[in-house]
Amino acid sequence: METRNLIGYQYTKGGKAFNATNPATGKPLEAEFNAASVEDADKAMKLAASAFEVYSLTSGKTRAVFLRSIAEEITALGDTLIEAAMSETGLPAPRLQGERARTVNQLYMYADLLDEGSWVEAIIDTAIPDRKPLPRVDIRKMMVPIGPAVVFGASNFPMAYSVMGGDSCAALASGCPVVVKAHPAHPSTSALVAEAVKKAAEKHYLTEGVFSILYDDGYTVGEALVKHPATKIVTFTGSLKGGMALVKMAQERDEPIPVFAEMGSINPVVLLPGALQSRPQELAKTYTDSITMSAGQFCTNPGLLLAINGPGLEEFKAALKQGIEEVNSATMLTPGICANFGKLSEQMLSDKVISVIGHSEKLNDENANQVLAVVAEIKAADFLEDEKFKEEVFGPYSLLIVADDLKQLQQVVDSLHGQLTATVMAEKDELVNYRSITDSLAKLAGRVILNGPPTGVEVNNAINHGGPFPATTDGRFTSVGTSSIKRFVRPVCWQNWHPDLLPDELKDNNPLNIWRLNNNEWKK
Amino acid sequence: METRNLIGYQYTKGGKAFNATNPATGKPLEAEFNAASVEDADKAMKLAASAFEVYSLTSGKTRAVFLRSIAEEITALGDTLIEAAMSETGLPAPRLQGERARTVNQLYMYADLLDEGSWVEAIIDTAIPDRKPLPRVDIRKMMVPIGPAVVFGASNFPMAYSVMGGDSCAALASGCPVVVKAHPAHPSTSALVAEAVKKAAEKHYLTEGVFSILYDDGYTVGEALVKHPATKIVTFTGSLKGGMALVKMAQERDEPIPVFAEMGSINPVVLLPGALQSRPQELAKTYTDSITMSAGQFCTNPGLLLAINGPGLEEFKAALKQGIEEVNSATMLTPGICANFGKLSEQMLSDKVISVIGHSEKLNDENANQVLAVVAEIKAADFLEDEKFKEEVFGPYSLLIVADDLKQLQQVVDSLHGQLTATVMAEKDELVNYRSITDSLAKLAGRVILNGPPTGVEVNNAINHGGPFPATTDGRFTSVGTSSIKRFVRPVCWQNWHPDLLPDELKDNNPLNIWRLNNNEWKK
Repeated sequence: METRNLIGYQYTKGGKAFNATNPATGKPLEAEFNAASVEDADKAMKLAASAFEVYSLTSGKTRAVFLRSIAEEITALGDTLIEAAMSETGLPAPRLQGERARTVNQLYMYADLLDEGSWVEAIIDTAIPDRKPLPRVDIRKMMVPIGPAVVFGASNFPMAYSVMGGDSCAALASGCPVVVKAHPAHPSTSALVAEAVKKAAEKHYLTEGVFSILYDDGYTVGEALVKHPATKIVTFTGSLKGGMALVKMAQERDEPIPVFAEMGSINPVVLLPGALQSRPQELAKTYTDSITMSAGQFCTNPGLLLAINGPGLEEFKAALKQGIEEVNSATMLTPGICANFGKLSEQMLSDKVISVIGHSEKLNDENANQVLAVVAEIKAADFLEDEKFKEEVFGPYSLLIVADDLKQLQQVVDSLHGQLTATVMAEKDELVNYRSITDSLAKLAGRVILNGPPTGVEVNNAINHGGPFPATTDGRFTSVGTSSIKRFVRPVCWQNWHPDLLPDELKDNNPLNIWRLNNNEWKK
Repeated sequence: METRNLIGYQYTKGGKAFNATNPATGKPLEAEFNAASVEDADKAMKLAASAFEVYSLTSGKTRAVFLRSIAEEITALGDTLIEAAMSETGLPAPRLQGERARTVNQLYMYADLLDEGSWVEAIIDTAIPDRKPLPRVDIRKMMVPIGPAVVFGASNFPMAYSVMGGDSCAALASGCPVVVKAHPAHPSTSALVAEAVKKAAEKHYLTEGVFSILYDDGYTVGEALVKHPATKIVTFTGSLKGGMALVKMAQERDEPIPVFAEMGSINPVVLLPGALQSRPQELAKTYTDSITMSAGQFCTNPGLLLAINGPGLEEFKAALKQGIEEVNSATMLTPGICANFGKLSEQMLSDKVISVIGHSEKLNDENANQVLAVVAEIKAADFLEDEKFKEEVFGPYSLLIVADDLKQLQQVVDSLHGQLTATVMAEKDELVNYRSITDSLAKLAGRVILNGPPTGVEVNNAINHGGPFPATTDGRFTSVGTSSIKRFVRPVCWQNWHPDLLPDELKDNNPLNIWRLNNNEWKK
């Protein structure tokens, strides 16, 4: 494995050395990485800008070949990749194998999208020379890439939202070169994937600079990348604080640029009375699993459960208590995340209006950075009194809010900030009676779910993984699924252009055979 | 005409009185308006938020009826509206009649878009219960409105980008209530249109608060509206300074919100050697007209002409000089805009590297706020030395940049900031030889034009009126044409939802008969 910073096709040694920690042992890992310099960031961005001139003009089919080749190279890494990720994240092998499958599948999915080609939203309005009072000119529009993207690797998805995760994949698919700022918690996983990307790029003779990766265990390199004039968009998945710091930097540039940050979400789950009454045990089982999956380190982790006091609630609580108690302790991603969970959950639980329902009792004291899942309870009236209860506690923590009646439940829902997801657990026939609740949830969130946990995100065309602030910085985009390409593109229209010099997507004879809105009619 | 502030269906008297100025006479107009208060802004936004709860759930067909009704009411205002606009803007009647037609047409165009219904981008991926390792859930996505919009009226389009211009029309079409901050230069025009909107809303029993309008000749009300927690998006057309001030306010909110501002653009026009040589007179005529149309007060005014020194250039310059000299002086929109033009153009022209090619010599000294068109020349090498030459001089001003050769022309193009438009005047056969220039122009701008002036914007599906910063704050959106609705919407997906409770757009039987991406296939 090559641990040096990669700028285009060149490995280049950086400065200060650092090692990642194996969270399960609490000890430093062997592989030594070097923090890149501000000069490296400058070089990588300049190379990306120059690569953009060529890469932005490649055909979708060329980029599809590249993405498929990356997928093959990642697959070829085999167990080496899984083992590196296990040692750097403490996540179990099946979870990481699933994540690798997702990472590879989304590369193939984007390749298919590019081959099909209609994603460019081609719209054509042809000329009407004899229109009165003025002739109508010929105008043809499609989406084009906006420029070099800086992608910050996420700690909680060392593959699917890291070096060649959803953000990088969508950016490369759109025609934007990518410079990755690797997450310092999993540099070996990052380096392996980076090598796979380099191989694929070299194999298909892509312009140098379509991909670079820089390491840093501090903030210097990330800041230099965001502030660099060649950077045209930034993506980030992480904390509200981290995301907003990037937004501020991006806004203070001479040329402000968009930052798509996916940040804090507590993913409320409303347990409707019918469901609570008819299947409290099943609900408890579903949410015990959802709250504790991957040590609660999913952005869609259900941090809030909402119910009206009534039949089934006590049985649900008892089953939830029992379920949580039986969960083993788990290794958190990093010592920092583990410490932060301890601090935040303790702050919450120490509040006198909160009472603990149950917590894991099985501590694995052979491993470091262990976390015990906990679920607690608060009265709706108390919840409404203090904004702090709406803060995300990243990890296996969930707060059950008990409302006196429907009116109070509605008040709680209406008090919530923007969310990635909002869920309703309901009997089939009762949902229609809670239209006001479900309408409010759809106003709040990017994805509304009936009778399923919010954890687990399908990667397809219809998925929306986004939501109003603070779930993301711009709820008008998704960061999962094929629509996530829209973050990286902008429309350009060509007016009265020379027919032979139009992009193929806009030519009269539709050589790519894509769907287009042609004089107000969708057709191929 | 009712001159009071309108909050929902109630007229409410504000504070400090002000009168608009007739720019042609320089004298105050009779109608007295009252600046709204911060409390008025709060009331209007709260009412908009409460209207959003209902209006966001109306069908597209309901909103189409509303938009058509607004168009009818605006048309019914007849000459009264044109006369008010003439007295407040100094623009001639034919120009304003054309603008009214555009305003009304875009309301009808949006109504048609809503009736057709496919604009919501419905995407459906149905369940696959037996998929391994995990079942695939049913997910269905569509666009929904994001919330109350604050629309700032633009000075240069008293109808088409003001009270019920493109921004308001797109917002209302999407399902977002609108609170207009009227431009203080044309309050009577604004008040007349506001009355038309109120009539249409009342006629169709729309929820109170879908539309409000507030007046202010200062910044207090605008600031209060942008900072109000109920505001979810802001649109603005005007100066870079004004737009960026709004962005700053919007970013500093507890919940940052998007500001779509269309700001500075100098719309470069490249005159290729073949065109210059074969038709210098025609080019000069086209650009004399384009530069001086509506006193140069179009956002697409061609502020830069670029040419390589060679055959035809001198003849072009001579014809341009003659053409400009023959242009009558014109009344500018406001005394402020007039003064600013004088100051900025003087600053530019006083620079020793700039020489005047020609200026209007026909001053109408019976009218106030007159402006004389001017075109000047600079060597490319000098232009590249100072950023100030790239600043927008709002008015009938254009700078001809003369490059020594193609390489220098390319340098100039590559040095430019983001633009709304970029134009090439070329002979049919030469364009292919300047691929590098045209590729660069498409990277720079939202619309590239062959052989036509940038002034004059088609309002249709294919148009893009937007572009990289500083042309707009977000080049991923357009502010003209049907796609401009995308600024006001965000995706929501419903997962495993109750079939009967899905929005009609996402129901299995496609009751609205719209185009949808259904399991990866576009169909009705």
